[in-house]
Parts: sequence; structure tokens; C-alpha cells
Amino acid sequence: MDQGVIYFPSKPSIIASGVVGGPLEKKSVFAADFDLLLDDERAEEKSNEKGHKQMALQACQIALEKANIKERDVDFLMSGDLVNQMTPSNFLASTLGIPYFGLYSACATSISGAIVAALLTELGASKYALAGAASQHNSIERQFRYPVEYGGQKPGTAQWTVTAAGYALIAKGQMNSPVIEAATVGKSIDLQQTDPFHMGAAMAPAACDTITRHLKGRGQSLSDYDLIITGDLAKVGLPILQECLIKEGMAQQDVMKIRDAGAEFYGDDQTFLAGASGAGCSASVFFSTILKGLNEKKYERVLAVATGALLSPLTVQQNESIPCTAHAIEISMK
Amino acid sequence: MDQGVIYFPSKPSIIASGVVGGPLEKKSVFAADFDLLLDDERAEEKSNEKGHKQMALQACQIALEKANIKERDVDFLMSGDLVNQMTPSNFLASTLGIPYFGLYSACATSISGAIVAALLTELGASKYALAGAASQHNSIERQFRYPVEYGGQKPGTAQWTVTAAGYALIAKGQMNSPVIEAATVGKSIDLQQTDPFHMGAAMAPAACDTITRHLKGRGQSLSDYDLIITGDLAKVGLPILQECLIKEGMAQQDVMKIRDAGAEFYGDDQTFLAGASGAGCSASVFFSTILKGLNEKKYERVLAVATGALLSPLTVQQNESIPCTAHAIEISMK
Repeated sequence: MDQGVIYFPSKPSIIASGVVGGPLEKKSVFAADFDLLLDDERAEEKSNEKGHKQMALQACQIALEKANIKERDVDFLMSGDLVNQMTPSNFLASTLGIPYFGLYSACATSISGAIVAALLTELGASKYALAGAASQHNSIERQFRYPVEYGGQKPGTAQWTVTAAGYALIAKGQMNSPVIEAATVGKSIDLQQTDPFHMGAAMAPAACDTITRHLKGRGQSLSDYDLIITGDLAKVGLPILQECLIKEGMAQQDVMKIRDAGAEFYGDDQTFLAGASGAGCSASVFFSTILKGLNEKKYERVLAVATGALLSPLTVQQNESIPCTAHAIEISMK
Repeated sequence: MDQGVIYFPSKPSIIASGVVGGPLEKKSVFAADFDLLLDDERAEEKSNEKGHKQMALQACQIALEKANIKERDVDFLMSGDLVNQMTPSNFLASTLGIPYFGLYSACATSISGAIVAALLTELGASKYALAGAASQHNSIERQFRYPVEYGGQKPGTAQWTVTAAGYALIAKGQMNSPVIEAATVGKSIDLQQTDPFHMGAAMAPAACDTITRHLKGRGQSLSDYDLIITGDLAKVGLPILQECLIKEGMAQQDVMKIRDAGAEFYGDDQTFLAGASGAGCSASVFFSTILKGLNEKKYERVLAVATGALLSPLTVQQNESIPCTAHAIEISMK
């Protein structure tokens, strides 16, 4: 067994999901697959952080409604977000009243949550578990970079934090729903990059490491997948990942088929610079369009790799490097 | 099965631990059981945050040395801390190079990590897993309250963030070492308390809920335990928990035997106000003195309940309430 690779013999199922986006996310190429698009960035709440939590709550409720499950029937909630001390997730958990694991892997959090949910399901400790993550543009930008009102210019390598929440409802393995077959837990990989406006480059080596370990652990190659999609490397980071995988000996024609949610999220609109990022980016795309593709049997086997930059405003001020991670789940549909 | 209660039939073992304290922690009543006490709060590093990470690294290395295990043989690291975005844990993970779950449950993080480690071990995905948490006084105080140099006065209900790190090495169940039999995952409980200098009162209801659920789920009573110890309710919070459990119908003589690591940590020294707190408080006490008591068969069954206040500096500024949580593991020794 390769380090960090986990197998789920009982194949826990993703039986439903809920995805909510903000008003600007109506421009996303994935928007048609979202369950709800808000007209107000703050979800009619009085602060960005309250809106952030409200959006995550709506995503959870939509997932439960689709599966016709009540909140009280959910055994565990796995959630995280980019706000300091993850307060939107903490308030989400107190509203839902479900035993709660707070997880933090920056923009890779949704998949670390799905992995813990699959572990709990595999063991029989959980009948239904909600796992996901969210991000809200204004609350994240003012924390990690500048207040939005300041209008600070950004280089073309910068990414746009999406306003979106994606939560999946995970239950014991069942027919006619996508199942989690295996997962690979990311290492924290630090190649001494320090530019918070160049996250794609910082995260690409972590994605490369996780994909390589996953394939090695599973005895697979890239061509065993109908789709390999990363989280938010965006337009700058994806080619770096591809170059890295070619150096690892993978076939160029397979490597070039790898997609990235962040690179595609806002299409070619240059307002959004190198593309989308945020914990809600991979969560919303994986748990809407990608799950839909699995449910419709467009894909039989997908490797969903969420990437995260483990920086903080303080480490940026202290000129520290940016360690990055990537967590992967292998989802199949029969 | 009661909500949030997890059973581990294979009984994963805590085969070793490493606990490091800061210079002031030499005053702790638990200090004699710590593996290392630093002379420098910053562990000879140039920033508080780097010292924070260094201390956690030393605790992990001590645990590995005791078990004669190399870093490369460890399958997973579970870590978290109170610094924004948990950067000390992120850097710890990049130094160790081990697949890493970042977990955040404030001062209850060490036990949420131990639970995930036990899950991975139970399913055979992990041979060796490190789980723990740390806190460093200066880096936490300046973030959550005031810069230390400011000398802001605090009320008697306030707690002192310890400088300490505690990490446990968890492996498959084996003879002659304490085993994790069961666990209960905390809910996020919000009784609309808002005072960040009165954390014990905010956390007590969460501890009460977790203990009550654990006992109900296990069909046990308080008297089935040689020791029930909470994390950092301190001198103000512990009596509130006791009152709460009596209201739940538990016997007063049993309730009054419950101990709290934060209440005892600095003895009667009033410099430390209501007592200790911080993610390193429960982690260092549980993984030193309490484990030692189990290893020496002073205790046969312990319920270790780490408590956490899920506030952030931002929510305090926004006058939001403070949701709290408590995670428990049941450790036995035969």
C-alpha cells in the first residue's frame, strides 16, 4: 500500500449533493448544474461571514431534501472554510446540531471531509454524513489580500475566490449512485514559493504528488480514468501540473486531458484573471457537474483532486513560504 | 447507537506519545510527566509561530523515538492549532512529509485528531498515525485578545493559554498499551455566550452534551470510569459542567470526581486566573500524565474529553456568540 492511499471496500455512496453559488457565479460555465444561485452575495444576511454560513446551510439543506433525509438523521458533518478559525462552518454546525468534525485543508477541504465521511461510513459509524466546504469572495479577499473596496490591482497569475458552497451526502454503498472507491491524502508540500498572487504554481507540485501516489498505490495509469479533474490550479497552475506529470513519466496525451475546475470556472472572462479558487470552487464543481456526469454515466471513473494553499495572512506578512496540499477521491459509477 | 458515538472493535493502541512544554510550564503540576520543557518560549526560533511549529515537531519526534519508529514509517499525521489557518501545523506537516489531515476544533483538536487516527487504524489504512495539537502563549494571545506587551488586564474568569504540544502515536491494537475503545464526536453548541474572557462557561454545556451522549451510547454511567477528565473548562467552567450533569440525573458523588486539566494545570497560582487553556492544554495533559496513569494501571478506564471554544477574533469584534464543542475518547488498559 502506498503512503496515504485509503481503500473503501464497501464503496460508500454519494447519494445526493447541494451546491449554491453567489450572484457573480451565474457567469460560471458550471452554473447550469448548480442547485441555487443567490442574488445577494451575503445571502440577505447582514455580514459577509453570516452570508457565508447561510450559503453553506442552504447547500446542506438542498442535499438533504434531495435524499429526503432529515437533519436529525445525519450522523456527522464534515466542514471547513477559509475564514479564520472557520467560523462559518462552526456556526453551520451549531445550526444543524450534528456531531461535527472541523477540517482545514484550505481549498482542498471538501475532499478531506469526504474522506473522513467515507471512513466513518466504511466503519458503520455513520449512516448519513454531510461533507463539504464553502467560500465567500468578500470575506476571504479582505482577510487574505486587501479589502475589496480598496481596489488593489492584481497580477494575471492571481485567482478569483468564488462565492459557492458544495456539500455531499455520503451513505453506505448502494446501487445507482456514484461510489468512493479509494482516496489519497495529501502531504504538505513546500517548494519555498512565497507569492500569494501565484497560488496555482505553488499548488501544482502537491497535485502532482497526490496523483502520482494515488496511481502508484492503485496500480493504475491516467488512462484508467474517464476524467481527472483538479481543484483550483487555474490557468497558470494546470500547465505546471501537466509538465510535472510528464516528468514523472506519464504519457503526454493522457496528461493533456486533465482538467481543472478553477481554470474553467469563469470561462475566458479576463476579469477573473487566472481563474477561480476558494474552498467553494472544487466543492461546487465536483459536487454538481462532475457528480452529474457520473450519475448520467458520462463518466465511469473520476479522480477528483482538490488542491489547497496552506498560507495565512500572517505567514505572508512574515515572508514565509506557502506549503500546499491536494486530497483526492476516486469516484466510480457502475 | 447514539448520535456521534463511534466504536473501535479492534481497539487501536496509543503506543507512545511526546509532550513538550514552554518555560512557564515548568510551574505546571503536570510538568514532571512532560518529556521536554523548553527554556525559550520560541524554542530558539525567530518568531513565535516558528517556535510553535518547532515545539510540535519536537513532540512528534519524541513520540517516534520512544516507539523506535522512523518518520517515513508513519502513514498519517493529524494536527491542528489555534493560529489562523493553522500554519504551525501546516509547516509541521511539510517538515515531516507525512500525508496530513488538518483538523480544527479549537482546544478540542487533539482528540478529534485521535479519533480520525483511530478510524484509519481500525480500517487498516494506517499502521502508525500521529495525532495531536499544540498552542503557544504569545502567538495565540496576540491573535485572540491583545498583544502580550500591551499588558491588558483580564478578569478572573479568563484563562491562560499554555505553551505546550502533545502528540500521540496510534497503531493497531496490541497488548500492554492503552487502547481507544470508543469515541464521541462533539456537536457545535451555542448558548449565545459572547465573552472571550469567560470560555469555561461557554464550553461547559458542550462537555455536558458529549459526556451525556457518550455514556448513553455506551450504556455506561460515570462510575464505570476510574477517571473522567475534561480539557480546559478551568476553575470556572468545571463547576458549571458538574451542575449540568447533576441536572441530567447523574449522581453527585460521581460528578464531583470529574477533573479538568485546565483547572489543575498551574495549581493555585493566581497569575493564571481561572486556569489553563489552549489546544496544547488537554493535549499535553492527556498524552503525558493521563497516559502514564493508564500505562501504570493506575486507571483501567478513562474518558478524556477535550473542550474547544470555536470563536475567532473576527466573531468577537462582530459581537457574535461563541459556539463550543467537546470531543471524547474512551481509553482503557488491561
